[in-house]
Amino acid sequence: MTAYNAFYAQSGGVTPVINASAAGVLDAARRHPDKIKTVYAGQDGILGALSESLIDTSLLSDDEVNALKYTPAGAFGSCRYKLKSIEEHRAEYERLIAVFKAHDIRYFFYNGGGDSQDTSHKVSQLADTMGYPITCIGVPKTIDNDLPITDCSPGFASVAKYVAVSILEASLDVASMSSTSTKVFVMEVMGRHAGWIAAAAGLAADDRGLGPDVIIFPEVDFDQAAFLAKVDECVKQKGQCAIVVSEGAHTADGVFLSDSGVRDAFGHAQLGGVAPVITDLIKQNLGHKCHWAVCDYLQRSARHIGAAVDVKHAYALGEAAVELAVQGENALMPTIVRTSNNPYRWEIGQAPLADVANVEKPLPKHYISDDGFFITEACREYLAPLIEGEDFPPFKNGLPEYVVLNKESVAKKLPPFEIK
Amino acid sequence: MTAYNAFYAQSGGVTPVINASAAGVLDAARRHPDKIKTVYAGQDGILGALSESLIDTSLLSDDEVNALKYTPAGAFGSCRYKLKSIEEHRAEYERLIAVFKAHDIRYFFYNGGGDSQDTSHKVSQLADTMGYPITCIGVPKTIDNDLPITDCSPGFASVAKYVAVSILEASLDVASMSSTSTKVFVMEVMGRHAGWIAAAAGLAADDRGLGPDVIIFPEVDFDQAAFLAKVDECVKQKGQCAIVVSEGAHTADGVFLSDSGVRDAFGHAQLGGVAPVITDLIKQNLGHKCHWAVCDYLQRSARHIGAAVDVKHAYALGEAAVELAVQGENALMPTIVRTSNNPYRWEIGQAPLADVANVEKPLPKHYISDDGFFITEACREYLAPLIEGEDFPPFKNGLPEYVVLNKESVAKKLPPFEIK
Repeated sequence: MTAYNAFYAQSGGVTPVINASAAGVLDAARRHPDKIKTVYAGQDGILGALSESLIDTSLLSDDEVNALKYTPAGAFGSCRYKLKSIEEHRAEYERLIAVFKAHDIRYFFYNGGGDSQDTSHKVSQLADTMGYPITCIGVPKTIDNDLPITDCSPGFASVAKYVAVSILEASLDVASMSSTSTKVFVMEVMGRHAGWIAAAAGLAADDRGLGPDVIIFPEVDFDQAAFLAKVDECVKQKGQCAIVVSEGAHTADGVFLSDSGVRDAFGHAQLGGVAPVITDLIKQNLGHKCHWAVCDYLQRSARHIGAAVDVKHAYALGEAAVELAVQGENALMPTIVRTSNNPYRWEIGQAPLADVANVEKPLPKHYISDDGFFITEACREYLAPLIEGEDFPPFKNGLPEYVVLNKESVAKKLPPFEIK
Repeated sequence: MTAYNAFYAQSGGVTPVINASAAGVLDAARRHPDKIKTVYAGQDGILGALSESLIDTSLLSDDEVNALKYTPAGAFGSCRYKLKSIEEHRAEYERLIAVFKAHDIRYFFYNGGGDSQDTSHKVSQLADTMGYPITCIGVPKTIDNDLPITDCSPGFASVAKYVAVSILEASLDVASMSSTSTKVFVMEVMGRHAGWIAAAAGLAADDRGLGPDVIIFPEVDFDQAAFLAKVDECVKQKGQCAIVVSEGAHTADGVFLSDSGVRDAFGHAQLGGVAPVITDLIKQNLGHKCHWAVCDYLQRSARHIGAAVDVKHAYALGEAAVELAVQGENALMPTIVRTSNNPYRWEIGQAPLADVANVEKPLPKHYISDDGFFITEACREYLAPLIEGEDFPPFKNGLPEYVVLNKESVAKKLPPFEIK
């Protein structure tokens, strides 16, 4: 049997463990030299294929590949670029095939979320649509946890652990200060359309009063009066209040709270941030001293507090993608299947890319409490196993010893291509 | 020799390791039953003494005291309350003495920063000023690292480690995204008057281009044109830019950048946050896509990434305070003395409270680079040993197993006192 080269790339917002999936892909591919010659990684996602910027991963040392398991962000660079339909983007597809042909690439592994799996799906159809024989397998990834079918998405569990740990710690802080100073703390987390990350903060809540008291989800229209009443009651009852708000929090008419209507001297809208808006609301209406934090990239790059199970998932899914490909499968994405909750057990399943592309999985209604401001026990049962276990990176001189790869580019064989 | 009770309290903004100092005080006091009967902890700092809200620490289990070594924030509650002079606050001083007399308290340990050590100093003078024989020893604490004389202040090193780790991780993230999306990341850290925390982020910078590219210190008047030129050059050169800004950043006329002049619909000033202001500046002038984070309480409660040396310092200073007291010393604060930089070695010294109270130690000029936007090698040499070593708390169910003390109050003997 003839062996061919493979293309692997990282797409969309990066995560603490997307590089662990890369390690899984590279390790598994090296176990199948009869089918896969070399894995070429795209520099900056699909752009690497379009621009013929290919990195020869066979030149990476074993140590470098191993270090990917504990290095956050996208070691090969990521991109936000979505291939449109063949009708709209024919030149791009022809270019992809030209690059694949020039470099003998017949395997395509795309590591990304819903938008990216739409790209994977289109590539998987190239045999039918453009007559080029390619095997395409998606590798799931998204901190938003909004991919369908899979029990969870790599990246989410580590972010979940980070936000739960962070609000646990901050709740201890505000409890210390509340007698004479700060009474309310507001922490903004990611999740523009799905409240999974905000929900995960709820894991820090315990019967000792720690963790968040109120969670604002994008799945629940923001009711200002109900929210203020909730915060007021909380401060009266326990002396302080810890709040987690999703960046996607919005009112019933669909306006993001972060779009506060505030304009600077030039009339420009004040840059996002829902935490200061929530804080201002509390300050103006209840008069409490507040503090607020915006986690932003810190939450999705915090590999130092990565979840052990997340690293395992990410690596296993990378491996599984290669195994599916060498078995001759196409247009699939390996998934996580939960087989037992307590003790937590899981195995690898699979889903057609056609069913994954562009589908968003919001937080189910029964995961949100009746008043709309907290998680239910069912949600906690789903989330709890995901943050179990620590997987600290090695440290050197007090800092995590993350790898920066020595990336060797493959010699270009084609003329440049203008990416629109 | 007669034994007396001791009073211990936590004051000002809390830290990841102030409870480790509490553990040091409690452990050391238990070794001197001939001199110290029971340590009564003040609930909410000095307010606990004024309101006679005393916690009997002899009823805490060994496990609880041990858990203080890895639990962030103030387990006994903190306060922002400064005793004025005896002339202005005579009733408060008389009340203190009444409470001390009622509970046989002749040792006073106050765990705080510069403002709090002013209170310690005033209490240490009570024998002279009010005729009450009390031994008062300060225990240093402040994430701002701005206490004089001591080489560093407990709390700072852990925050330093947190911000260095965070900007290291975020810099990997923005490097992944910069080809098609975010090119600039801005992280806001604490330090209203001193740039020590912002400086510590510089430890993440390495010869691979990771870590922060630009640091904005409160010690340097903000020069907008120079700053934008620096960011522009950085993005042009390496494709992205990671920025750390101190909350205390200000212009030459002393206006905090966080006070941007932005008003909401009601004319209220928009609540703080210098990171969004810096971001807006870059967006409007250079046009780059930016992301920003505000660490706020997360940085000062992040015991999960505490610095090992910080925990040791904090505990040792708590112990040393008790040892000084039982040796009959008064009006002192134990300090950290650095005896060797490489390998890092330190010992306990001491400073008169009179020399510590209300003195702020800013970042020295030679710790800031000539252009004002980075740290020097001298600064790095000072900071590097402080973040060495990890001291992870125990974890349970995926979260740090922090303690919430079972606090038993001492029966009140006095009528209530109204605190103004």
